[in-house]
Amino acid sequence: MSVATPDHRFLRALRREPVDMTPVWIMRQAGRYLPEYRATRARAGSFMGLAQTPELACEVTLQPLARFALDAAILFSDILTIPDAMGLGLHFVEGEGPKFKAPLRSVADIDRLGVPDPESELRYVMDAVRLIRRELNERVPLIGFSGSPWTLACYMIEGGGSSSFARAKALALEDAATMHRLLDTLAQAVASYLAAQVAAGAQALMVFDTWGGLLAPAAFREFSLRWLGEIVARLKAEAATRDVPLILFSKGANAHLEALAATGCNALGVDWTIDIGEARARVGERVALQGNLDPAVLAASPDAIRAQARAVLDAFGPHPGHVFNLGHGITPDIPPEHVAVLVDAVHEFSRRG
Amino acid sequence: MSVATPDHRFLRALRREPVDMTPVWIMRQAGRYLPEYRATRARAGSFMGLAQTPELACEVTLQPLARFALDAAILFSDILTIPDAMGLGLHFVEGEGPKFKAPLRSVADIDRLGVPDPESELRYVMDAVRLIRRELNERVPLIGFSGSPWTLACYMIEGGGSSSFARAKALALEDAATMHRLLDTLAQAVASYLAAQVAAGAQALMVFDTWGGLLAPAAFREFSLRWLGEIVARLKAEAATRDVPLILFSKGANAHLEALAATGCNALGVDWTIDIGEARARVGERVALQGNLDPAVLAASPDAIRAQARAVLDAFGPHPGHVFNLGHGITPDIPPEHVAVLVDAVHEFSRRG
Repeated sequence: MSVATPDHRFLRALRREPVDMTPVWIMRQAGRYLPEYRATRARAGSFMGLAQTPELACEVTLQPLARFALDAAILFSDILTIPDAMGLGLHFVEGEGPKFKAPLRSVADIDRLGVPDPESELRYVMDAVRLIRRELNERVPLIGFSGSPWTLACYMIEGGGSSSFARAKALALEDAATMHRLLDTLAQAVASYLAAQVAAGAQALMVFDTWGGLLAPAAFREFSLRWLGEIVARLKAEAATRDVPLILFSKGANAHLEALAATGCNALGVDWTIDIGEARARVGERVALQGNLDPAVLAASPDAIRAQARAVLDAFGPHPGHVFNLGHGITPDIPPEHVAVLVDAVHEFSRRG
Repeated sequence: MSVATPDHRFLRALRREPVDMTPVWIMRQAGRYLPEYRATRARAGSFMGLAQTPELACEVTLQPLARFALDAAILFSDILTIPDAMGLGLHFVEGEGPKFKAPLRSVADIDRLGVPDPESELRYVMDAVRLIRRELNERVPLIGFSGSPWTLACYMIEGGGSSSFARAKALALEDAATMHRLLDTLAQAVASYLAAQVAAGAQALMVFDTWGGLLAPAAFREFSLRWLGEIVARLKAEAATRDVPLILFSKGANAHLEALAATGCNALGVDWTIDIGEARARVGERVALQGNLDPAVLAASPDAIRAQARAVLDAFGPHPGHVFNLGHGITPDIPPEHVAVLVDAVHEFSRRG
């Protein structure tokens, strides 16, 4: 289990190098399906209290690693820390998800946004990264992350979650110049934030473009893809971040895999609505792929979980560049034992030689 | 405006024949965004009271036609009338959507389901179709519809809406034979129900596979597509329904357009996450296409609505076989004037000669 991290199978797979078995981690692996997470969350008092206390963020980051043979840790945090640092006041309402106290309501609101300095204004994240990295002690690599500019803009304009983010889309349609000023500021902020996470110890990076897939194709290219590309370009232009594998995950945007791969990122997250073998055929010479088991499979029986894990591995085939994951985050209803079944099945079925 | 229906541009477009201008209707056009709908709904007391009273269902079906130059009417009803007729007890909880009093909880529950006789057990729907058709007086064609077997099964097993329908997916994975018995019963029921709507006066049919797109590709083919194909085969085997245009709409399933077209249906609904020109290039020689403006566009300014309507028409291009629609239902927040802007723009921009 304890391979020194530079050669860990997770990082090797992201570089499309041969591995002894397919690495696996689970989006939202430190989360509400774990009783020990719920206990720490209760001690913290609030989601933001948990995320903003490095010792507690470290504790929950490590919890799933104590239970399962996972091949990566991911910083416990939220995709919306940047707008919070910009002054929008992130908080969580039970059962309703993230909310902003001061959503963007005017062009003036947008024009007064600054790019946060990660080491001062997002210090709690950097402290958590440093602490987690130390506590991991090279067991598995640590992933840092952020939301994408488009996804951050959606929440910042709507003030919270939405089924359609119609307000954000309306701004994009009615005043594209203002939307691009916002996205430009956010792209600078995301690139700077991810670079700071690398400086603090993150060994791979992931950008969650959770709502890119809600956009019609032309709008996706203009408002989501363009600014993902800008982030990749910024990170790949700097010696300190150039060699850190960068994963882009645009959920629901399988029509755009080629364009996403062409950004120069190292890997793409893939949701479960495409055969991962087809995704590999389309882009697998350029990037590694991370995915793509339907998260709902984890609610089924252990036999069904094993069969479906094998189906994803078989669909990808005996090629380099596969990181096994779900196609979206694990849900709170999943029995933890089912995660053990999945992780062990992935390793067992993919073992080479 | 008043073309005799057999040659109405809506039916001509579904047959991929030349039209004077692109026909347009709006999914959920009789709905909560209209104050007159909310008034009738309030008089009815409940959603089911409205759907089950033919005079009121007729009234709300016709309301949007009095305001907008729409090219089709769609029966006011719900996609879940069949399971209600099977005894599951459909009702609507404000803000939560459809619920069943007696969801399917065992194999025995599934095995005791019968195929409802439409003229007795769904008489209120047939009466509504007859009344609407009479009141329409050939102004525009009337569309009948049902939910798809997979979509009905999702709700019947979960007991209501769900973000993942994990319970339905688990049954499919763990006991495919039982799931297929359920889907077979539902496919028989849907085909019989749609044929009865045609006998009552429906001039086109649509099957809403609202949750097909939640399935991984292999599961989509097995549990959704297969049974859509069965419905098409049943309707195309009968002289009474063979020539009635049939539209399949699997939301979020753009990866499967070719397979959906190969069922032998006449048209495919297309959501807004694919360029409709690309969809046409893939399947447009086999089927007409219905779509695909992002519903969120209707929340933007009239200028933006006109520009985006033009973009969809331009993307489809000067080919036969386009019925303009949204890529999903209209939402309650849309100002009715915006619908007028859209409908008029579609006609204006697509007028031939």
